[in-house]
Amino acid sequence: MDSEQTLSAWLPDLLYDGKRWHYDTALVCDAGGRVVDLVPATEVSGMMIRLPNQALLPGMVNAHSHAFQRVIRGRTEHRSGASRDSFWTWREMMYSAVTRLTPEDIYDASRMTFLEMALSGITTVGEFHYLHHAPDGRPYDDVNLLAKAVVQAALDVGLRIALMRVAYFRAGYQQAPDPQQARFIETGAERFIQNAETLRLNLGREQPGRAWMGVAPHSVRAAGLPELRSIAEYAARRELPLHMHVAEQPAELEACLSEHSRTPVDLLAENGILSPSFTGVHGIHLTEREIEQLAFAGANICACPTTERNLGDGIIPADRLFAAGISLSLGSDSHAQIDLLEDARELEYHLRLQRLERNVLAPADPSPSALAARLFDCATIGGARSVGFDGGVLAPGRPADFFTIDLKDPSIAGSSLDDLLANIVFGSVRSSVRDVVVGGQPMVAAGTHQVQADIVDRFTTLQKKLWS
Amino acid sequence: MDSEQTLSAWLPDLLYDGKRWHYDTALVCDAGGRVVDLVPATEVSGMMIRLPNQALLPGMVNAHSHAFQRVIRGRTEHRSGASRDSFWTWREMMYSAVTRLTPEDIYDASRMTFLEMALSGITTVGEFHYLHHAPDGRPYDDVNLLAKAVVQAALDVGLRIALMRVAYFRAGYQQAPDPQQARFIETGAERFIQNAETLRLNLGREQPGRAWMGVAPHSVRAAGLPELRSIAEYAARRELPLHMHVAEQPAELEACLSEHSRTPVDLLAENGILSPSFTGVHGIHLTEREIEQLAFAGANICACPTTERNLGDGIIPADRLFAAGISLSLGSDSHAQIDLLEDARELEYHLRLQRLERNVLAPADPSPSALAARLFDCATIGGARSVGFDGGVLAPGRPADFFTIDLKDPSIAGSSLDDLLANIVFGSVRSSVRDVVVGGQPMVAAGTHQVQADIVDRFTTLQKKLWS
Repeated sequence: MDSEQTLSAWLPDLLYDGKRWHYDTALVCDAGGRVVDLVPATEVSGMMIRLPNQALLPGMVNAHSHAFQRVIRGRTEHRSGASRDSFWTWREMMYSAVTRLTPEDIYDASRMTFLEMALSGITTVGEFHYLHHAPDGRPYDDVNLLAKAVVQAALDVGLRIALMRVAYFRAGYQQAPDPQQARFIETGAERFIQNAETLRLNLGREQPGRAWMGVAPHSVRAAGLPELRSIAEYAARRELPLHMHVAEQPAELEACLSEHSRTPVDLLAENGILSPSFTGVHGIHLTEREIEQLAFAGANICACPTTERNLGDGIIPADRLFAAGISLSLGSDSHAQIDLLEDARELEYHLRLQRLERNVLAPADPSPSALAARLFDCATIGGARSVGFDGGVLAPGRPADFFTIDLKDPSIAGSSLDDLLANIVFGSVRSSVRDVVVGGQPMVAAGTHQVQADIVDRFTTLQKKLWS
Repeated sequence: MDSEQTLSAWLPDLLYDGKRWHYDTALVCDAGGRVVDLVPATEVSGMMIRLPNQALLPGMVNAHSHAFQRVIRGRTEHRSGASRDSFWTWREMMYSAVTRLTPEDIYDASRMTFLEMALSGITTVGEFHYLHHAPDGRPYDDVNLLAKAVVQAALDVGLRIALMRVAYFRAGYQQAPDPQQARFIETGAERFIQNAETLRLNLGREQPGRAWMGVAPHSVRAAGLPELRSIAEYAARRELPLHMHVAEQPAELEACLSEHSRTPVDLLAENGILSPSFTGVHGIHLTEREIEQLAFAGANICACPTTERNLGDGIIPADRLFAAGISLSLGSDSHAQIDLLEDARELEYHLRLQRLERNVLAPADPSPSALAARLFDCATIGGARSVGFDGGVLAPGRPADFFTIDLKDPSIAGSSLDDLLANIVFGSVRSSVRDVVVGGQPMVAAGTHQVQADIVDRFTTLQKKLWS
């Protein structure tokens, strides 16, 4: 092999490239952080990092995150005082944090969230970012100050980030402005696009391949149709991923019917907003017709089951979505927990609870890991597709982003090649994650992040400030 | 304090006694492994083990386990070939392992399962043990050989064990014998009681306080009414806990109605089998009348949500059970995962998914940890009550069984005193568990068990033998 000096190679016991397992195979990557090839161990010359008792897998892509919401973890699991708690009473508690965070606080909270992602094998995050302004609603001198703070947090941890810049224009159809949303709201699509374009150019110049932008009209509640159309047109022109909360709550559906006499997806389909670059986040309360429309357009759905169970949103109909051929991704969303493998298993498990049936999402393939492979795809290539990234598989030319699992961890010990992926998806715990590498650069080693102690200390200080 | 030499003291940053948190407080225990008192740190003389950055909590009690089922983890998450997979197709796969395990295999599998429990903060297990005979159905020379292998595995790991000796007499009402059940079946209640009594005396003599016996008619499927009555009478005479699978599957309910013209709990209530020593395991498909009957008798329910979601059993109506004042415990059952805190949160989360509502099980108390405390009680004092054990709280005279949590673990970092328990129950990951102590003796230190490598190696060898 030429120019050995510039190549790095890793040799685990087992390597999953996104399709199948390889024995005695090294992952070779170039100085630019891309995979050169998967090579038999005996053919590697030069430096090779051995990873004994470890399995190596493509890094996971977390397609939906609100990083700052980590500050309310554990603070909403009690009665709010309302007669019945729901997503909406939770949202009030979330807003009470929103209005108090400084740019530095947002950086510290985001870094904490991204640290947890890194430790769990996530290498890329899609951050659905809706905090733009100062608490009083005035833009900062740099309108993208907060977006940049979040991007910096991801880069400082070592994650790649797709900053999905959120468009938020109103509290809802025929709803009075909500002062708690002052940090989200920009005055019209034109201003939004102008601010987004500034950020897009900045990220493209400063962080090519490590940070990029997508756009995200928050929901049909928060944007009217003309704005949705303008933003979709901008996204298409710039080839940006377009994310949007869709069908998370029944109330959203009702409001959309009132305003547009159409269901949300119906409205998006009719206005040409659905495309392979479009991801509907949640997609819980969907009609058959809406599923057909999403499938016809090649649009994606991002499920966030650990958050959806925490918020009482409901169960995503993953069976109907898979049957329609829709690509699914996963997101840790509110960060009640950060564990995409738990999200992956819940896609299936929540349907088991609903149907009193097993292996609901399993393909006909009788291999013990066939269902697990389908679910793991959601955490990898499904996510990559959703956020506009060419990772999620380990193949020549693709980013060298991966994590390793300790094969002696008690949660998966004793696995054989045919059930290893099933054990990883259905049974592994976070402590089984050992090394995490992004673009050939180590981010987590032996289960610990290099600046973990500092991140935790700063976050602890932040939480004391916020809540005592 | 007198006789300092014989006392041990632990000083964590925070100590939860089962009711509230204490600062600067040491847990002092005697040479017999019992709590002497909770003492202000400044008043402890003599040796004190400092546990900086750790919170100390009562050890968890896993009230329902089938330890050997660990061997099929990850091997049933795919289509069985039946048109529709369910608990029953899973059972066939489980039976295919049952028929092949030697006594040594059962020891190795059990030790692996108990190791995982230890690492997750469980200090006592209720093992619902139904493997009695050789694969051909013949009793071993010692009829309790396999029960003793399981007990030995628990003791070698360091766990306390309540061996719930299972009574299994038939495949079901008007069902032909199933040769795959040959290892479970004993010929009649008299023989069962004789064998059980031998085991009870043996454990009482050999392992007082570390291993004890309960009895467990498997289900209304596996035992007829006269046998149920005999065993319940025996349990009452010897003051033994009495466990039984109840209302796990709709088919069980139908069979019971056919045979007895009564629902399972109705039958048990009418025949005086319910009592405060009785635990119905699962309790998913219960009528209002059955819940009233359980409550009236002071009987317990053990929920196993991670298994119930894996098996597609359904959602336990924990809201109705709490409202009736029934004591709930938790079990890891089939060991699809071993994480009682995940079980605890699912008690609540599955109801949120069903109801599209939050904080369903929360008491009116507005403290951020009120719901978490209720769920944590299920994993501690609820379990202790169910298996006939005086642990689950840290108070003078009680067993010194506890685990510690690393307060800097990224999953719970930044918690304050009022939301710490909520973060532990709703968000913590297993890697946050540091030290686990049973009867004053360390079992897990700094997240690792002393003989972990050996246990994992032997289990790996077993799995190769079984599945390759």
